[in-house]
Parts: sequence; structure tokens; C-alpha cells
Amino acid sequence: MKTLKINCELDYLAAGDADYVFNIQVADHPWQTIKYENLRVTPPAQLTFGLHPTGLNRLAKTRSGPGGFEVRYDAIVQVDYPIPTGFEEEMPISALPVEVIPYIWSSRYCESDAVLQVAARTFGQLPKGFRRVEAICIWIRDNIVYLVGTSGSTTSTREVLVNRAGVCRDFAHLGITFCRALNIPARFVTGYTWTVEPPADFHAVFEAFLGGRWILFDATLLAPVTDLVRIATGKDAADTAFATIFGDVKMPRMNPAVQVLAEA
Amino acid sequence: MKTLKINCELDYLAAGDADYVFNIQVADHPWQTIKYENLRVTPPAQLTFGLHPTGLNRLAKTRSGPGGFEVRYDAIVQVDYPIPTGFEEEMPISALPVEVIPYIWSSRYCESDAVLQVAARTFGQLPKGFRRVEAICIWIRDNIVYLVGTSGSTTSTREVLVNRAGVCRDFAHLGITFCRALNIPARFVTGYTWTVEPPADFHAVFEAFLGGRWILFDATLLAPVTDLVRIATGKDAADTAFATIFGDVKMPRMNPAVQVLAEA
Amino acid sequence: MKTLKINCELDYLAAGDADYVFNIQVADHPWQTIKYENLRVTPPAQLTFGLHPTGLNRLAKTRSGPGGFEVRYDAIVQVDYPIPTGFEEEMPISALPVEVIPYIWSSRYCESDAVLQVAARTFGQLPKGFRRVEAICIWIRDNIVYLVGTSGSTTSTREVLVNRAGVCRDFAHLGITFCRALNIPARFVTGYTWTVEPPADFHAVFEAFLGGRWILFDATLLAPVTDLVRIATGKDAADTAFATIFGDVKMPRMNPAVQVLAEA
Amino acid sequence: MKTLKINCELDYLAAGDADYVFNIQVADHPWQTIKYENLRVTPPAQLTFGLHPTGLNRLAKTRSGPGGFEVRYDAIVQVDYPIPTGFEEEMPISALPVEVIPYIWSSRYCESDAVLQVAARTFGQLPKGFRRVEAICIWIRDNIVYLVGTSGSTTSTREVLVNRAGVCRDFAHLGITFCRALNIPARFVTGYTWTVEPPADFHAVFEAFLGGRWILFDATLLAPVTDLVRIATGKDAADTAFATIFGDVKMPRMNPAVQVLAEA
Repeated sequence: MKTLKINCELDYLAAGDADYVFNIQVADHPWQTIKYENLRVTPPAQLTFGLHPTGLNRLAKTRSGPGGFEVRYDAIVQVDYPIPTGFEEEMPISALPVEVIPYIWSSRYCESDAVLQVAARTFGQLPKGFRRVEAICIWIRDNIVYLVGTSGSTTSTREVLVNRAGVCRDFAHLGITFCRALNIPARFVTGYTWTVEPPADFHAVFEAFLGGRWILFDATLLAPVTDLVRIATGKDAADTAFATIFGDVKMPRMNPAVQVLAEA
Repeated sequence: MKTLKINCELDYLAAGDADYVFNIQVADHPWQTIKYENLRVTPPAQLTFGLHPTGLNRLAKTRSGPGGFEVRYDAIVQVDYPIPTGFEEEMPISALPVEVIPYIWSSRYCESDAVLQVAARTFGQLPKGFRRVEAICIWIRDNIVYLVGTSGSTTSTREVLVNRAGVCRDFAHLGITFCRALNIPARFVTGYTWTVEPPADFHAVFEAFLGGRWILFDATLLAPVTDLVRIATGKDAADTAFATIFGDVKMPRMNPAVQVLAEA
Repeated sequence: MKTLKINCELDYLAAGDADYVFNIQVADHPWQTIKYENLRVTPPAQLTFGLHPTGLNRLAKTRSGPGGFEVRYDAIVQVDYPIPTGFEEEMPISALPVEVIPYIWSSRYCESDAVLQVAARTFGQLPKGFRRVEAICIWIRDNIVYLVGTSGSTTSTREVLVNRAGVCRDFAHLGITFCRALNIPARFVTGYTWTVEPPADFHAVFEAFLGGRWILFDATLLAPVTDLVRIATGKDAADTAFATIFGDVKMPRMNPAVQVLAEA
Repeated sequence: MKTLKINCELDYLAAGDADYVFNIQVADHPWQTIKYENLRVTPPAQLTFGLHPTGLNRLAKTRSGPGGFEVRYDAIVQVDYPIPTGFEEEMPISALPVEVIPYIWSSRYCESDAVLQVAARTFGQLPKGFRRVEAICIWIRDNIVYLVGTSGSTTSTREVLVNRAGVCRDFAHLGITFCRALNIPARFVTGYTWTVEPPADFHAVFEAFLGGRWILFDATLLAPVTDLVRIATGKDAADTAFATIFGDVKMPRMNPAVQVLAEA
């Protein structure tokens, strides 16, 4: 169990009135306990809270005028993940809970129907289960270059496979896509991490459903997966943007910092 | 208020063992009351029930061996829609409930970010609200041909705009895409309808969020929108497939029939 | 017959050494007679001349160092087009010269195989020949908005049909694509024109093969097609870029001016 | 020098009248001498001959009615390639003949502008010249699976990189695409080969322009590149289809056989 302190700072500069929807608050999730949290904006503005239609992600909406707009989110969170054994098994469709089956379907950034053949050829003969998902992560690390600036907000798995480069978001999308192509439910998870240096951005990893539960994997292998405070969960990045902005706004600075307060 | 009797028949022919996930049961939704329902399969097999991650759609999973496999769903449903006034207004982002904002985002089949310019040029100057969504439906009817066989399960809005043809699913996707491009939350709805003759397939329409509630629109204008028993609701067809099948299976016949029992 | 004076000015600013390949010289073509021409660059650099692999386009290659680089092309050209009668007929494949058949095939920016259905539905029942190609031009003018900045150098016909906007290049591509989908050979033509005001850019039109010869059409209808001094001819814009640059170079100014010297 | 005997048989079955354009005759090319050739069709029909607009490929057009239609092309050809030294050098743009520069540009199936980054990362630091193109071929062989049925007539380089599988045509396209991304002119070549067993199809390779001349490479490494009788040369497969058919026609059988008559 770890106790972590989050100080997330987002600085915006708006040309006019703008609406903001944030998804930066730590998730309500069994693996983490929120001991304290505070979300505030400057200049002060009313915040309206709600959930994403899936119920998994916490949204906060606000509105501000032209000029600077600062968002500050502080939290203290206890995180305690169940460590996987490495022997968790894939479940046949007949044994899967109905609710997780939609996470096998193709989604916007994870076009698993476009990689059925390559997934079967590359991973189809490997032993099933945890080790197979691990093999997917290793393949991604061996074949895709981690390179900031090579992808953007509309980059999907197919483009990542063409350009063979991307950031954590693309790595997670690729892991999800290959899992789904093998009928393993998989989904996208964003969070705060402190082991990526510098912590210039939110982190993205993915979960595969093995042995009856969701297990986190990080295809970048930049951060141990236990070192993540979960923010959002969804089919892919389309469900989990940390900010959606309506208006002419720039973001000169962001700093989603995390500090380890205690470890036990 | 109408009382409707549904008799949905799906006949499959499987080359081997296969898993099936159906989304054909009538939705739990405030506008409709399920008086009776029965879902059964022949040869008999265990059915497992669950919800889509959004909680909006009812899924039923089953498994069967090689040979014929028949699915029968019967229901009696009372449907009572609030009739829109035609004057429902678009809401500014600041007034929208947080929960509906994700329905403004692009999704797999509704790439609203690709049509921002054409939507603004075509519909941007029209009076806002119900009439503007109606204008979108009229534009679709005037510019897109309803033609069975011109689109398939991977056809997205961009391809519909290129080929200018499609079926109800494509019409609904296009309506959703233009709405979202104008910052109107919109989502995909499937259902049983009895006014399309012959009732050879499930119907697809869309909902736009106007005046604080979801209002149904049918871009095909083939069926009055009040003549629909809702099955599924989602961002687009990716959330609402009536059947997902794992295995080598053909469907020689389907008949989702509806009969009006009473009208008051 | 018209006598025209061309003064084409291209001003570049290079960050380092750069190679330039220009396709701005007036074509050797039976419809036009070059009375005088002069291509020069400042600072002076060696120019190497050659033809595109099709033999249709004149290329000039040069190399320059960092700093400003000015290209000046002056020409005096007599242009005399055969005016079409409006009754030129489409030819069956069996009557077409073999050499023009490749202009029926899909090309990079003109994906005619993607619009076979919509072309057949929209233009398939119209009387064949000149009037049908004219109908294509009218359809384009009615359905596509001429709007600078809505398309770029990689925009293909499919994107133009989605966004329903473009510039002369996109209009010509769309005309070519529809013609080819109807088995009418069609190709891309660039040139100097003086009736578009201001003459800020090169113009693009297209040719369809009717009645045994190539006939020019302008889907923008901004300029009478007779008012064009031909530069390049190709399957689409991929064959006819007015400049291909290898290096880090900006173009602060271009002015392809044309002046009517005499008309008879 | 080799003397080769070609017996190419194409059997068609037409539902109605159909037009055919063939590109199966051996090319007029300095590396090969046609000692004898004969192209005939059964039932007999008039053949019209012509060249592709590039002048590089020989086209034959004919027309036939419903029923069977057999095409037979026999030829005896002497082939004598200049064997590359393996030390041919890449040429800077400034030294390249103007005419070959269009073979650096993106084309329909070879979207080199989409792979600039991955090409630079993967091959940018390698020694330039013959060895670099060879390294491209080795990368393709190591990363792409040769698998019949994984690609089709519209498959472009991007899809090959996603699915990581293809046939000789896709391998050649990929080699061309990477070369162009590195500013090496490259083009597509089809031909008859006898070292692929069984010789069920035409072969496709590519040429890179090194040391002042075109050098053949075979990214499949299934056949020594010297074992090819050239049919067509073009920017990519869009210029070199062995048959273009207008009509409802099936091809139950094809057999492009080659036999070595003499070797010296």
C-alpha cells in the first residue's frame, strides 16, 4: 500500500469565453482510497460534477472568460493493487461475465477487426493467459518506438502500426487492439504516475480481463503498473480525455505531479 | 399509449461450437413498460444475462453446438413517448448536464471532428433547436439514398458521405455526426418498429438532447419516431449490435415482427 | 486565337541548401505556340531541364543555398483551342484508343473505384457525351463549396465529398473521378489563367476524352476553359505539382500573372 | 545471357460482352531481346495495340462476347542484365536526372509521405547506396509475412504495414515506399519468372535508381532478380495491371509459364 500526494496544475489562456470539461479527479475504484481532494479554479467559477455515461469516470464542468484560467487539483490517495500472480488465465467467451464482452469489440482508436490476421499469426500460437498479454507488451516495446510528437489526438492503432512510433496512449491502444483481436477483453486506463521522469503528462496503460478480473499492463514498460493512481477507464482514449474544451483556448503549461508520502 | 406485441425470430446455422451475445431484449426505459417477455433458444441452452458497461443495454449470452440454433424473443410492451413540441431548444454547454457531454464527442462510426466545417456551413446559420435537427434530417433525406446493400457493418459516416447511400443505421449515424459537430449531444437508438414494410430488420434512429431531454429523430423518415420499441442506446452502432457471434455461423433468416395490440 | 503574356514570380526563403524541381513552363502542346520564354533564378544557379516520364510535362531542376531565392518565368504564348460543339460523344471502350484507357483507372487523388455506385446513381441515366460531363460539372458546382483553406496537398476525392468544399484542384479531381467511374477517360490539367481574380494561384481543370479528342472542362466555372495556358497534364495532381522542394524552404510570395496582349 | 520461352495462358468466362486490355507482352527494354512473340485469342477477335501514356508498357485491347475466352501469349526472349556491383551509390537530388525525380513522389499504392518518420528512424543512419536498399529488402523479409490471400487489388503500403503480410506486389510496393521516403527514386516492375514454384502468377519486383541507373531488387527474395522477363514498369501497380476488364468476367485459370531454353 502506498500513500500518494497529487498536485495537478493546468494553466490555460483563453481568447474568449470557454467551457471546460475535466476528467482529472482520481477515480472511485476499489483499489484506491481518496483521503483528501480539492479541485479549484482561478478566477473562481462554478464547478458542476457528474459521471461519464459508463459511470466509471468523474467529470467536472466549468466556464470562464477570456484571459488566464488556472486549474488546481490536489489529492491524497492510498493505493493498494492486488499483485497479479502471472498465471491468470484467459477465459473462454462462455465463462466471461456478460458485462466485459463489449470490451472485446472494436472501438474508435482500437480497430481490432483490422488486425485479426496479424494478431493470430503473431500471438495465436503462444500459451494463453497472462504470459500472452505480456508477450504483446514485449512485441510492442520491441517494434514501436516511444517518441513524443509522432502521434496526436486522432492517431489510431492502424497509424501507429504504420509509423511504428507513439507515446503511452498509442502503446496502450495497441495492446488493447491485439488483446481484443484474440478475444481477450481489454480497456484503456489513464492515471497519475510518478516514475516517469519528468512527469510532464498523464499516463496511459491498459487492462486485460484475465482470471476473472482486470489486470493492468503497461506496454511502455516505463512505469511499473502498480505506480498509477487511476483517473479514468474506458474503451479507449475517446472515453477518457483529461480535458474537453469548447472555445479558443491554449494550454501554456501542465504539471500533473505525484509524490510518494508513505509506503508500506 | 400503445400496447405492442413483439415476436423476434433469429435462425442460425453453425458449423461448430459458437458463443452468442444478444442485445434484442426491450430496454428498461421510462418510456416503455414491459408487461411480458420471454427469451428462449432451441436447442435449449443456458442464458446468462447482464448489462452493457453503460448500463443502458441488456445483453444475453449463450453457447451452442453445430447445427441449427433458433432464438425466439416474445414481449408485450406499453410504449408512451412524450411528444416533442417542436420548440425544444439547444442548450449551451454551460447548461448541459455533465453526463450528456460525452455524447458530443466523436465516436467510431460518427467522426464528427471530420465534418466540423461542412456542418457549420450547412447548418450553422439555421435557427437553433428542434428545427435545426429537423433540418439535418431533411438534408440527409434529400442527399442520401436509402438503398439496402450499399453499406456494411464497418461503414462510417465518412463513407456514407462519399457514397451518398445507406440504410437506417447510416442515416442515424449521419444525423448524430452533424448534431455533435454543432455541439448538440446525440446518440444512437435501435428498436423494433412495425411501420417499415416489410419489417425485415431492426430499426435505427437517433436521439438529440434538446430542451433538457432526449428527443428521438428518424433521419430516414420511414417510420414515425413514436413507433419504436427501444432496444439499445449508445454512442453509435458499436455499442448496440443486436448479435455478436464468436464462431462460424450463418443467419439464414431473421424476422423481428411487431404487432399493435391496442392504442389509446 | 489569343496572344498572352505570362509573368510568373515565385519567391522562396530557404533555411539551408535546397533542391527545387519546377513544372511552371508552358507545355509543348498543339493548342499553343510559345513565341518567347525565359526562366531564370536569382541568385543565379544552374538549371537542368527534362521531361516527366509521361513526356507531357517540362521539368526544371536547380539548387540554391540559404536565403532568398527568386524564380521568374516570362513567356509569350499564342493559344488557340478548338471550341467543342457540345455534341461530342462518349466512346465505347472498344472504340477508344488504347493509349487513353489508363486515364480510366483510379489514381492517387481520384479514387474512382470508391464512387462507382454514387456515379451510376447520379449520372448513369443521363444522356451520354459532352452533356453528361457538363452535368457532372454542374453537380460539383451545386454540391461543393469553393473555399480556400479547406483542403491541402494530400486531399483526395473522398475527403472532398465528405467536407463538400475545396479549391480548383479538388473540383478537377472530383470531375475526373466521376468521369472515370462512368468509363470516360479523364485527366488533370494545370495552367495559367487570367480570369480568376486575383490570379493568386495556378489554375487546375480537367480533360475528358469525348468524340475522339480531349476536351477541357472547368468544374469551378470560375474561368472559361478557353482562358488557360496549359502547363501540365497528368492522371491527377500527383503528376503536376508546380514545385517540388527538397529542403527547409518557405514561399512568402507567388504571383502567376497573365496578361492578354492580343485577341483575334 | 539467358534464352527463355514464355507460354502465358489466361482463360476467361464472360457473362456477356466484355472489353479487355492486356499488359502481358514482354517490354521493349534494352536488357531483353524479343526473338519471337505471338498473342492470339480464341474465339478470334481483333486486337488493337498501343502504349501506356508513359510509353513503357505495351497494351493490347480486344472485345469478346459471352462464353469462354482464351488468351495465349508465346514469346522467346533473350535476357541479359547488367549485374550490379553492390557498390552503386545514391545520388543527391542535384545529380539525379530530372526525368527520374517523379519516381520519388508518392503514388497511389506507395504513400511514401506517410512513412517519412519510420523510414528515417529505421534506415536513415545506414550507409547509403545499394546496401541501404538491400537493408530495406531484408527488413521487409524479416517483418512482413509472404502469405497469399492477405491482400487484394486495393491494398496499399499502409495496410501492408498494419497487417504485416502480403504477396510480391505488396513487398515491392513497400520497398518502393521506403526508398522514396529516403529520396531514392524507385518504381514498380512486373514480369515473368520461372524460379517461383509453382509459377501461378505474374511476379512483381522493384527498381531503385542508384549509380546513375535502375537496379532491380526483389523484396520477397523468392527469385533472383536476374530471373525476370520484364513486362511492365510504372510508379506502382496502378500503372501495370496485367488485365483490365470491362464487363462481368471470371478467370477460372491462369498460367504464366516460363522455360529456360539456353543459358550462356
